[in-house]
Amino acid sequence: MNPPATAWQTAAAVSRGETSARSGVTAVLARIEAQNARLNCFTDIFSTAALAAADQIDRQVAAGQDPGPLAGVPFAVKNLFDVAGTTTLTGSKINRDQPPAEQDATAVARLKQAGGILVGTLNMDEYAYGFVTVNHHYGATLNPHDLSRVAGGSSGGSAAAVSAGLVPLTLGSDTNGSIRVPAAFCGVYGLKPTYGRLSRAGAALFSSSLDHVGPFARSLQDLALAYDALQGYDPRDPVCRDQPPEPALPSLNQGIEGLRLAIADDHFARGMSPPVAQAMQQVAEALNVTQTVTLPEAARARAAAYLITASEGSQLHLSKLQTRLQDFDPATRDRFVAGALIPSSWYLQAQRWRRWYRDRVSEIFRSVALILAPTTPCIAPFLDQTTMSIDGKTVAVRPHLGLYTQPLSFIGLPVMSVPIHLPSALPVGLQLIAAPSREIDLFRMAAQLERSGTVRARMAPGDESP
Amino acid sequence: MNPPATAWQTAAAVSRGETSARSGVTAVLARIEAQNARLNCFTDIFSTAALAAADQIDRQVAAGQDPGPLAGVPFAVKNLFDVAGTTTLTGSKINRDQPPAEQDATAVARLKQAGGILVGTLNMDEYAYGFVTVNHHYGATLNPHDLSRVAGGSSGGSAAAVSAGLVPLTLGSDTNGSIRVPAAFCGVYGLKPTYGRLSRAGAALFSSSLDHVGPFARSLQDLALAYDALQGYDPRDPVCRDQPPEPALPSLNQGIEGLRLAIADDHFARGMSPPVAQAMQQVAEALNVTQTVTLPEAARARAAAYLITASEGSQLHLSKLQTRLQDFDPATRDRFVAGALIPSSWYLQAQRWRRWYRDRVSEIFRSVALILAPTTPCIAPFLDQTTMSIDGKTVAVRPHLGLYTQPLSFIGLPVMSVPIHLPSALPVGLQLIAAPSREIDLFRMAAQLERSGTVRARMAPGDESP
Repeated sequence: MNPPATAWQTAAAVSRGETSARSGVTAVLARIEAQNARLNCFTDIFSTAALAAADQIDRQVAAGQDPGPLAGVPFAVKNLFDVAGTTTLTGSKINRDQPPAEQDATAVARLKQAGGILVGTLNMDEYAYGFVTVNHHYGATLNPHDLSRVAGGSSGGSAAAVSAGLVPLTLGSDTNGSIRVPAAFCGVYGLKPTYGRLSRAGAALFSSSLDHVGPFARSLQDLALAYDALQGYDPRDPVCRDQPPEPALPSLNQGIEGLRLAIADDHFARGMSPPVAQAMQQVAEALNVTQTVTLPEAARARAAAYLITASEGSQLHLSKLQTRLQDFDPATRDRFVAGALIPSSWYLQAQRWRRWYRDRVSEIFRSVALILAPTTPCIAPFLDQTTMSIDGKTVAVRPHLGLYTQPLSFIGLPVMSVPIHLPSALPVGLQLIAAPSREIDLFRMAAQLERSGTVRARMAPGDESP
Repeated sequence: MNPPATAWQTAAAVSRGETSARSGVTAVLARIEAQNARLNCFTDIFSTAALAAADQIDRQVAAGQDPGPLAGVPFAVKNLFDVAGTTTLTGSKINRDQPPAEQDATAVARLKQAGGILVGTLNMDEYAYGFVTVNHHYGATLNPHDLSRVAGGSSGGSAAAVSAGLVPLTLGSDTNGSIRVPAAFCGVYGLKPTYGRLSRAGAALFSSSLDHVGPFARSLQDLALAYDALQGYDPRDPVCRDQPPEPALPSLNQGIEGLRLAIADDHFARGMSPPVAQAMQQVAEALNVTQTVTLPEAARARAAAYLITASEGSQLHLSKLQTRLQDFDPATRDRFVAGALIPSSWYLQAQRWRRWYRDRVSEIFRSVALILAPTTPCIAPFLDQTTMSIDGKTVAVRPHLGLYTQPLSFIGLPVMSVPIHLPSALPVGLQLIAAPSREIDLFRMAAQLERSGTVRARMAPGDESP
């Protein structure tokens, strides 16, 4: 079997009539069929609907109509996005009892509108509350690069499906790192845009003041294609800002001239395991960056993000906690219960402090355009690993995977996790961090890193046995 | 001594040079001197500064300059408004240790700018957390109509000072009823404008998502004068909306043609004591209103308002609760401590539910322009009264004084409490309630009620002995 096509290749070939959308979708369904039992990325596969949508694209092409920039491109979404006619699981057993969604989430609808073909939904931590995608009800999603390791989470199915080449494009969501952490562990690109940039309508919320949606891809060009299709105001989402789309695709060839770079020090330079430190070293040398900046009180930002997440998340699920406690995943249950008891004075203090922190970080972006930081302190941990060493201290694994991601999503900054190319080790992610609404700069920088050979997505070695 | 002049009379006479601002201020200071020991309205009196400001106005008049629509009008403010050079007490002993304010609150500055003369600051419940103005540190403000009764709160000093004729105009603040309750008990006009309409900059907050500032007066014309001077965008207050001022003064002669009226039933028709029921009956007959409307779930709105107030208020004072608990007023201390322990999930649930309630009430205003409801369930209780009867049940007095005010401020509706004229009883207040930003309708309605003789502010009988 050849390596699967990128979204870009597929859309080009389908648009020109060189290949049919049906044959592409058929190949993708076969690949999923062959690999998913091993990786456990998908929680639902829409074979019939996907083939019907492919036929529709093929008819459009035959009729000379423009099938859109994602013509015939198979994609899949974290199972917290509404898909009309199916029940939105959000990684939960309880949610199986809910009625089917009446309409697609806006992000799903936009990818379909651009010609994309939805082939299924993807595994996640229950209610997005986790960094590992080890789900009590739906099983663990395995890391395609090493099946004894986690894929990361909570959008683990989305990262692993792309990493394993099952589909070129997926959607996830990120509250404290749920796009970036699995992107890093699986060696792919993941984009968490500015808070309010992409519509969340029809995506199940976790912590409203922190939730973002965004795409995953193996190819930076594919990531830009998806991001461009997702942009645009949506009156269905009260936090979606009414700002004109800023296409990312043209920026890939712009270079990085004029972009002042700096590496985050202090909190973001402490606690890295050796492979992560090595990757950061490699990036600094490749770019010849010596300037550093300090995001003040990043540890406190992380604490505040925890408080807000637990408070808002628990409030959202309060009635289920009261009536169906035993049907929660043991991995989320106690945290939700504890979150429901956080004093409101702490929550309000965290929200108040957040404004101070946002103002301080804004000042930093007056002198630099892009900040670099590791995505996670470590490579993907083993599935049964409970502790790890950070700065010589033994700590619990799961709560520390967001060490470097939480202080950034906390104030809604756009961040892309890019895969650092380390031939000998498992994937390591680098966060590119820009000022609000400067996603374009992330794409310019990532393209430059890709050209320099520093950054490269790696498809995991597939198991091609039937 | 003659009855004290209204703001309108004073400004007219001073502007025309018929009387001096100095003589007016001198008379007011003498009246305060004579009466304040008995009523305990004022916590600070600025005699020297007030006389200097009066001289300045008199010089302007002599020079042919326009001294403003409140030329020479003495006013006073609840002691939570910043006054440059003095410490803002907010009814607290702890706050005495704070440095003096560097600039006037915007509301204070605007009244001064219009020619008003600040003569002092007024008593309140500690941190605005009460409906009685019985302050452990600064004493109780007595009701000028019956010295054995409370003035209401938390802006009790502001209502009593106007009721007793000490000044024609005062400022207060209203979170759950703190302007309307004392206005009702003291028989004067009190206006709580739409949330975000008047700047709160420089006014100590209590519960940010519920706080409003507004004026008190014995004369409706004076209330309009003050409201007009207070309007206008203020970049110093992040919640102050940038909307053009809509002068209230011209509306007083417009009549109420085209304004559809209704009386609030359900929650607002239950629990009235006999004099309040009698006043409501009198209003309904005078206006010939028979239509009623139901604000759904008003009791729940009140519960949610309690949760939000206690949560936000406690967060604001958390550090003082941790370090100086014994210096709090016993009347607020335990409530603040309890508020600090409210689960964030309850707070968030209350905020979420608030949006539902706001939408439901908005629908009501599609078919009516003004809703009438009593301000309080009872006349002013005795100072030492701890229980009262509501609907045949014996309940604690203090928490029930906001029975009818809390469900309205909860969603920021503009409300005016107007004094119903009942010759034989103590004052009773009627709430006029309009859709957001429709303050003008409140003034039109109040003017109509005044013309009909139904509504009339009553100055309390003074003790004219020196």
